[in-house]
Amino acid sequence: MIVQKYKDMLQGKSVIRQLSEFATARGKEIGYENVFDYSLGNPSVPVPQEFTDLMIKMLQEKDPMELHGYSQSLGIPSVREKVAASLNKRFGMNYTGNHIFMTTGAAGAIAHALRCVSEPGDEVITFAPYFPEYGPYVNLTGAKLKVVPADTKSFQINFEAFEEMLTEKVAAVLINTPNNPSGIVYSTETIKKLAQIMEEKQKKYGHDIFLISDEPYREIVFEGVDAPYPSAFYDNSLSCYSFSKSLSLPGERIGYVAVNPKCTDADIISVMCSQISRGTGHNCPPSIIQLAVAEVLDLTADLSVYETNMNILYQELTSLGFECVRPGGTFYIFPKAPEADAAAFSEKAKKYDLIVVPSDTFGVEGYFRLAYCIDTEKVERSLGAFRKLMKEMY
Amino acid sequence: MIVQKYKDMLQGKSVIRQLSEFATARGKEIGYENVFDYSLGNPSVPVPQEFTDLMIKMLQEKDPMELHGYSQSLGIPSVREKVAASLNKRFGMNYTGNHIFMTTGAAGAIAHALRCVSEPGDEVITFAPYFPEYGPYVNLTGAKLKVVPADTKSFQINFEAFEEMLTEKVAAVLINTPNNPSGIVYSTETIKKLAQIMEEKQKKYGHDIFLISDEPYREIVFEGVDAPYPSAFYDNSLSCYSFSKSLSLPGERIGYVAVNPKCTDADIISVMCSQISRGTGHNCPPSIIQLAVAEVLDLTADLSVYETNMNILYQELTSLGFECVRPGGTFYIFPKAPEADAAAFSEKAKKYDLIVVPSDTFGVEGYFRLAYCIDTEKVERSLGAFRKLMKEMY
Repeated sequence: MIVQKYKDMLQGKSVIRQLSEFATARGKEIGYENVFDYSLGNPSVPVPQEFTDLMIKMLQEKDPMELHGYSQSLGIPSVREKVAASLNKRFGMNYTGNHIFMTTGAAGAIAHALRCVSEPGDEVITFAPYFPEYGPYVNLTGAKLKVVPADTKSFQINFEAFEEMLTEKVAAVLINTPNNPSGIVYSTETIKKLAQIMEEKQKKYGHDIFLISDEPYREIVFEGVDAPYPSAFYDNSLSCYSFSKSLSLPGERIGYVAVNPKCTDADIISVMCSQISRGTGHNCPPSIIQLAVAEVLDLTADLSVYETNMNILYQELTSLGFECVRPGGTFYIFPKAPEADAAAFSEKAKKYDLIVVPSDTFGVEGYFRLAYCIDTEKVERSLGAFRKLMKEMY
Repeated sequence: MIVQKYKDMLQGKSVIRQLSEFATARGKEIGYENVFDYSLGNPSVPVPQEFTDLMIKMLQEKDPMELHGYSQSLGIPSVREKVAASLNKRFGMNYTGNHIFMTTGAAGAIAHALRCVSEPGDEVITFAPYFPEYGPYVNLTGAKLKVVPADTKSFQINFEAFEEMLTEKVAAVLINTPNNPSGIVYSTETIKKLAQIMEEKQKKYGHDIFLISDEPYREIVFEGVDAPYPSAFYDNSLSCYSFSKSLSLPGERIGYVAVNPKCTDADIISVMCSQISRGTGHNCPPSIIQLAVAEVLDLTADLSVYETNMNILYQELTSLGFECVRPGGTFYIFPKAPEADAAAFSEKAKKYDLIVVPSDTFGVEGYFRLAYCIDTEKVERSLGAFRKLMKEMY
């Protein structure tokens, strides 16, 4: 019988998707170059040429049976070892290949990490503002997502509310730093305090509380910003990574879970993940992509355009009077809307062909998100539209 | 907290995996060329050169932003349309792109199909002998796998037992033809009778019963064998396909669900699948692989070696006195063991460096499986070992 639960989900239409569709339709009328489409968080710079060259070389030279053969569902052993070595070098960790579980992007990583440490009925905490997919990611495992209200002054963590919500029912805490949609990077102070509270509660409740750290924007951090590696501060940590943004290959679905070597059952979590796989239909990420990313672990696409765009937008928006916390990374900025109803503001912005996402979808009211992963030239042309919009409003 | 269920699963060790590890270890002692390793069902012929050339061309010529960009979680629209057109041409169906949901191989396809039409507590029926992964595939969704005992005369379907087990609790029936491990292809007569019984029971119970057809071996069918396309005979059908075996790229994880256009809610099942994805962490199969397979839908690797190997083995084994149903496809053969205890027989075979999988793991006692996806030269050399083994036994 057709399962009603998934049928019902078809009713809810993503606000981001609707805005993106509006932008495309408007683009057909006036030319897409004239639509200031800040709706979607898709990388706007190409994959490094080294990756492409390597793929071609492997296709030309490698035995196709080996190249396209099954990898273990854990990932190809040599790839896992290289990921571990790269993380150790960069973040002073002690991973071995056994602590790495290769996945089809961060979504796959989170799906496995959640199932490893939470069961139906458990609670999983996240912090507003948050990536709206966390709702279905968590709730479809049978656990329940609880959202800690935002600290809108800094978009760091509202610790008072967090401590209150961190009850005995909580199995895991899901963070995302650098953050979508705020662009904020959690400071060392924030991560330390988070770890301290979680450790106290673990002791108090007598059970593990896992930190699931969603890090697809880890490599997009702006100059001078303090960007600690969360797992280094809390033993029961599962880091979920994706190469989608750092290497600009979101369609190729490649990422991993990195299991902190000091966490409970550290040595079996990746093999537990491969058991979980048998239910979720994950077998392994694509072999050729695994092999290729393993050779470019310390490269990124040219991510500098995002910082350039952020600086332009931050300066113009604040000088126009928008309240805004300066992003420390990602390709998002999250200013306060000049009226309480962010959706109404987003509607007004459309008149100037500015496509901005109202914040309600991220669990906060009265803000809007700009995804500035677009050409700098277009960002500059959009400033006039912001000026006109503000003129209309005041 | 670490979830005990998945931890417990680590205790059960796959018999096939153990045999494969034994073969590798033995190969280190005597040279792998001297181990007649029939344990693993991995393709033994390379991907068509056209696929490799196409991949290289795309990498050289396509805009990397487009090539590696997000596909919809349903799959790239042009790819879905091409898959539909190819199936229509070959099997006289009426699919449109909307009926195709691209997945990471057959495992991903089955994971989505199962969740679409069965809920925790429902029963899903399959037929012995069966692929042992069906256990976790089904049971980890919360549904319960029920196995219809084998018809060991023909390895078609034991309809008497099936009718008895097809109670009101059954949400779906999972078939695999051509079959792993028997190598048997369900005849048109079998599929028609299966469809007729399921239709009667649907009427009787007043609810849909879905046919989930797992078809990774669809393209490996031997000369003169009747190999009907199951979905053409039963409207409520979801066909689960993988390119792993037909194109010899099991590691690249590419396949699809094809939703029969006449089934209940046919037009929304693929979008329901993309809702299911949000929980399982599937976002889309790798973009570049989607684009490449879409251009070689009507090609296969050179699969003729499998039929050659089957003919050699079938003739020798039957002339040695093994009872054996002649395979119609795949790269498996499933003879009766000359003693009731198939595991004991598999142990004896090891003495002659013959690695064969006892049938208990496939839900039948007293048989063994040979995966003859190995070089023909090795198959020929193995015949002497079979002869010696039988001499020891009689």
